[in-house]
Amino acid sequence: MNKDYQSLIHSWMNENRVVGIELLQKLVRNRSIQTNEYEAQQVIINHLQKLDLEIDEWEVTGDIFTHPYFCSTRKSFLKSPNVVGVKRGIGKGKSIILNGHIDVVPEGDVTQWTDDPYSGKIEGGRMYGRGTTDMKGGTVSLLLAIQALKELGIQLNGDVIFQSVIEEESGGAGTLGTLLRGYKADAAIIPEPTNMKIFPRQQGSMWFRLTVKGRSAHGGTRYEGVSAIEKSMVVIQELQNLEKARNARIVDPLYENTPIPIPINLGVIKGGDWPSSVADEVIIEGRIGVAPDEEMRHAQEELRLCLKNLENIDRWFREKPVGLDWFGARWVPGTIDEDHPLMGILQSKFEQVKQTDPKIEASPWGTDGGLLEKLGGIPVIVFGPGTTEIAHFPNEYIELERMFEVAEIIALTLIEWCGVNR
Amino acid sequence: MNKDYQSLIHSWMNENRVVGIELLQKLVRNRSIQTNEYEAQQVIINHLQKLDLEIDEWEVTGDIFTHPYFCSTRKSFLKSPNVVGVKRGIGKGKSIILNGHIDVVPEGDVTQWTDDPYSGKIEGGRMYGRGTTDMKGGTVSLLLAIQALKELGIQLNGDVIFQSVIEEESGGAGTLGTLLRGYKADAAIIPEPTNMKIFPRQQGSMWFRLTVKGRSAHGGTRYEGVSAIEKSMVVIQELQNLEKARNARIVDPLYENTPIPIPINLGVIKGGDWPSSVADEVIIEGRIGVAPDEEMRHAQEELRLCLKNLENIDRWFREKPVGLDWFGARWVPGTIDEDHPLMGILQSKFEQVKQTDPKIEASPWGTDGGLLEKLGGIPVIVFGPGTTEIAHFPNEYIELERMFEVAEIIALTLIEWCGVNR
Repeated sequence: MNKDYQSLIHSWMNENRVVGIELLQKLVRNRSIQTNEYEAQQVIINHLQKLDLEIDEWEVTGDIFTHPYFCSTRKSFLKSPNVVGVKRGIGKGKSIILNGHIDVVPEGDVTQWTDDPYSGKIEGGRMYGRGTTDMKGGTVSLLLAIQALKELGIQLNGDVIFQSVIEEESGGAGTLGTLLRGYKADAAIIPEPTNMKIFPRQQGSMWFRLTVKGRSAHGGTRYEGVSAIEKSMVVIQELQNLEKARNARIVDPLYENTPIPIPINLGVIKGGDWPSSVADEVIIEGRIGVAPDEEMRHAQEELRLCLKNLENIDRWFREKPVGLDWFGARWVPGTIDEDHPLMGILQSKFEQVKQTDPKIEASPWGTDGGLLEKLGGIPVIVFGPGTTEIAHFPNEYIELERMFEVAEIIALTLIEWCGVNR
Repeated sequence: MNKDYQSLIHSWMNENRVVGIELLQKLVRNRSIQTNEYEAQQVIINHLQKLDLEIDEWEVTGDIFTHPYFCSTRKSFLKSPNVVGVKRGIGKGKSIILNGHIDVVPEGDVTQWTDDPYSGKIEGGRMYGRGTTDMKGGTVSLLLAIQALKELGIQLNGDVIFQSVIEEESGGAGTLGTLLRGYKADAAIIPEPTNMKIFPRQQGSMWFRLTVKGRSAHGGTRYEGVSAIEKSMVVIQELQNLEKARNARIVDPLYENTPIPIPINLGVIKGGDWPSSVADEVIIEGRIGVAPDEEMRHAQEELRLCLKNLENIDRWFREKPVGLDWFGARWVPGTIDEDHPLMGILQSKFEQVKQTDPKIEASPWGTDGGLLEKLGGIPVIVFGPGTTEIAHFPNEYIELERMFEVAEIIALTLIEWCGVNR
């Protein structure tokens, strides 16, 4: 039975390379950064219409702004719709959510790109452009899987709920909106760029901003001041120690190939405004990883205590404690039982298609999966084409073959998870 | 003889408090930051006219732009005149240059000022405002000294060359301009804010910009990148070691009360642009102090070698050497023989007026004195009212009494240095 479906779907994918490539190119050429998602969502809707799905397009609003899981700087989502397309099953099957985000991070410094960041140029089996890997490629895999089943006349028992959400890159208000609108399922797959590894665990993360104080003085008499730059070095060292301590506690074998399972990354530093003055303030911005089974609050408390402990290392911090501000984005961690049936199905379909065992790891970053699990009670697996290394960077690309392989694996997974009547 | 002059001048100063205060207030209320010096220079010229000086007002131009000592980002000094006023002696006396700069550094963050930064408000014996201490107060001391001699009918043998120059805060193009225009003298006094200490040595300094490279990665997999922020910590530590080594060589007793005679100050740091990305570049800007008897080139070479040596500490720097750029301002160091006659005269006049010994130290910062000495061959002493601690900072002020005391000491010094026929 499986063998038949596999060869059918494999052939369909081979015959529909152009469909997938054209769809991805259309999506990539729409610069769907935050607040600019509208046109790309219309591309999605146009495609969903061809697949005979029940389409739901709406702007997130209302109670969401006061929801405890809400995290966004936006005051309105006007013209930034969420899109859901439902393929109803014929009954008595398990349902599944297939979730992808339409928002992309900005292209950054254009001069670092070889081509236009939204070119969708194809070269050497790769398509280039912001969002190819994170994660319009994964979204196309989902749509190809659904389309293959439709065109091959394979009717599922359970419902397939395809979601194209906004705001994943900025705190998950889009996926939160789908939950508040009532979308639930027995499980979910999110094809974020895992490089085709299977992630039953998802790390959470939070952004923070530290304010390190000094005292100004003329650089020629710098001993009369206190350098916020020098004090920052003490702060950074303590954060490195905290990172070590937090990671030493991680014993999950899924992290055994990960050098630092839950990193503390310091991404931005800025301070001082004159070369020959002593800097009186340095701002450091970073992200702290949250273990899949850890409460966000616990990670916050550990960072707070680490900064508090600076007072025992350097008396200066008693006078001027380091300021701590949780700002910007936040991703809730998530986890699915490794024995969950969907895990077994996805692994076996991977083996069928790839003729090798899948790698099973824990994700080094957050996704909307944490929200689906923690708030919606929906078990989530993250599995998709594309790779983290090139997400968010210039010359982002995706290996097109991986996108079709993932589509094939997901189509086969849907057949087994949702069930079919032959 | 001295006793007579002293009481005459002391009385004149007492009777002319209002003259000095009004003049300083007028100067402070003109925001003479770089490129905006014109109006403040007109205040100077108006005052010089009352003193019957030969006035020379000109805009620096021509050969100066290619002069080896030229240091400025400006391409033109149009509407930024230098002003010199010469009081010719009646002959056979030694000449002197009295040099003050009219430019002030910008006021910075206005919210940190209690009053308008250009208020010239008087409270508790202090006048507040940008430029009061650095160094319009010192300039007023010079003008009061000249005015006292004139109004008391004291005719000097040697010439007094008063200079109100532009660009001291940005590399000395104004004073360089006076030298190129031919102004020379047997000695010079610059009343920068020494808190009435006598500085026969002047530290030089230069600004530098370091570019520390990293390699970007997602913060969740930060071990795949190289953090330019972490590498900066290595660089900063080596610069601290260089500062220690350079200062360990300073044996001049004039520095014995100075914790760090020639500091390396790191004043600005900025790097990275996203909290959850690994920073791929950090820029550090600072100043390196140059010892009074050191060649600028020697200090530059030591810094270059220090950065080169990073390659032996961390292999990363072989791949990505730290970039070094000498930019912005530069002050040439200077020194006068401690046995120079002007040193003796100034000390004895200080003792007469203050009834205590002056403190003799080496300056912790650069002035235009280095140019006068190195290029003009003119021995220079730096001695003035005001204090470094508040120069360049919010709520800059000057103790008005100190301004009048310095005026008195300089007037008496002129009488003895330039000579009088009774």
